[in-house]
Amino acid sequence: MINKLVSKIKKLNAPIVVGLDPMLNYVPEHIQKKAYEEYGETLKGAAEAIWQFNKGIIDATYDLIPAVKPQIAMYEQFGIEGMEAFKKTVDYAKSKDIVVIGDIKRGDIGSTSAAYAVGHVGKVKVGNTLITPFDEDFVTVNPYLGSDGVNPFIDVCKENDKGIFVLVKTSNPSSGEFQDRLIDGRPLYEYVGEQVAKWGESHMGDEYSYVGAVVGATYPEMGKILRKIMPKTYILVPGYGAQGGKAKDLAPYFNEDGLGAIVNSSRGIIAAYKQEEYAKFGELNYADASRAAVEFMIKDITENI
Amino acid sequence: MINKLVSKIKKLNAPIVVGLDPMLNYVPEHIQKKAYEEYGETLKGAAEAIWQFNKGIIDATYDLIPAVKPQIAMYEQFGIEGMEAFKKTVDYAKSKDIVVIGDIKRGDIGSTSAAYAVGHVGKVKVGNTLITPFDEDFVTVNPYLGSDGVNPFIDVCKENDKGIFVLVKTSNPSSGEFQDRLIDGRPLYEYVGEQVAKWGESHMGDEYSYVGAVVGATYPEMGKILRKIMPKTYILVPGYGAQGGKAKDLAPYFNEDGLGAIVNSSRGIIAAYKQEEYAKFGELNYADASRAAVEFMIKDITENI
Repeated sequence: MINKLVSKIKKLNAPIVVGLDPMLNYVPEHIQKKAYEEYGETLKGAAEAIWQFNKGIIDATYDLIPAVKPQIAMYEQFGIEGMEAFKKTVDYAKSKDIVVIGDIKRGDIGSTSAAYAVGHVGKVKVGNTLITPFDEDFVTVNPYLGSDGVNPFIDVCKENDKGIFVLVKTSNPSSGEFQDRLIDGRPLYEYVGEQVAKWGESHMGDEYSYVGAVVGATYPEMGKILRKIMPKTYILVPGYGAQGGKAKDLAPYFNEDGLGAIVNSSRGIIAAYKQEEYAKFGELNYADASRAAVEFMIKDITENI
Repeated sequence: MINKLVSKIKKLNAPIVVGLDPMLNYVPEHIQKKAYEEYGETLKGAAEAIWQFNKGIIDATYDLIPAVKPQIAMYEQFGIEGMEAFKKTVDYAKSKDIVVIGDIKRGDIGSTSAAYAVGHVGKVKVGNTLITPFDEDFVTVNPYLGSDGVNPFIDVCKENDKGIFVLVKTSNPSSGEFQDRLIDGRPLYEYVGEQVAKWGESHMGDEYSYVGAVVGATYPEMGKILRKIMPKTYILVPGYGAQGGKAKDLAPYFNEDGLGAIVNSSRGIIAAYKQEEYAKFGELNYADASRAAVEFMIKDITENI
């Protein structure tokens, strides 16, 4: 699956991923209204609204983008019905041949991580039948529990041609509280990065590993060091755009082959119609605004790296 | 909710929580068979089997136990249908007046953590309607992203009389890979513990904070130090029984008032009928075996702390 992701990035010349993180206040009035008319102001109504919103964005951008990254929290907040919208979004994106990175940030001890893994990137056995529950292509994984928490994901990925991105240095302001703590003069995230590179050796694709890393765009000087520590690791870079990361800061995340990183934008793409630059599209044409924002993002990044 | 938990622990003289982590191979043949006859070897069939299994255990133990801790991964592995079984289990336990600790180990950046929080321990707004999606009483939270990832949970808990348990030192063998790294001579988990105590000050119950900690039973010498660092923090202690933690090692996790810790057992209780000591109950009476295992666990712990 990492080979497919790399090949799509090359073909489209677009090292980007669209974060499908639909807050209800991003969803245009007409979509919400229709969903509530059909299902009421219920979890099902909310789930229908975000699903229709996502579908519009996928339809308007699928030929430009290699991948989408639905953030499961934005679905899980609407309970079971929200999880159904998540699943529909995953399936629909895959039907359009888009690589799906489930941003689930799971991580637990052995057998429990294995359960998350089969649920999201594997197959679960019921009686004598194997079933694929959520079926993303990649998921994000939290490393706090160490190898016990990560290896079960890698094992399941090996069996199913899937991959993971392990949190190394996150994009949020307080990420340094624990991640930047110095151990023998070097920050914790470097040790995590080294471990990611090591985990990655056990599941290599053609050029890059199936085990990737998450490193926020908001810390480019750290990105530079981590790029060196993890040369064969694809880096998923959140924090571009709305969180303050600039395209000119992204060069250190890439290798000299122009590969090795995929930059995420969520709000900046899916709620583009709310920004001044794209307001001309109007709320009704929110998906066209998203397409224009994708075109700008690809240009902005490829010209600056 | 921490007051309710403490009061139930006192009343039942039972500082324990039953981990409802149903692997399919724990579920007796007759329950699986019936579920598959009705729904086939499908996710729905699996979900029905684990729900009926849980219901039997809750019915057989609810008068003895203050709390249950369903591990969401064991449900999520069965997709949407599994999540429905999780929700049913939460609701059923609450209908029996058992405190529910959702072992979800979520944690993300600000708005995303807020979404998990409203989904699990709060209310989500749809149009002008407030809805409670999963509605556990407590959830477990991963601290790797720092305060940004934890504070949104605390804010939602304040509004809804709910609480959290933050991972500090987990029970698994590789937990030391990152958690034990020395920073100025002290391990990372101590810094996390200090932060948990600080977060906890902002949301206090009568004697203990709504912000608890997870510290594995497998590391009692660390439990002793963490107990001192976090005097007002309830400690959720996994790892007793099947993972190797012994009752005599648990004393350091408790305060002198005999409170301050709640010990989890999952496999040791819910799959008791598979152990030699309880084999006499037979598979059909698995729930009675679980009750006997609960009675033993309460005695074992209260006599040793």
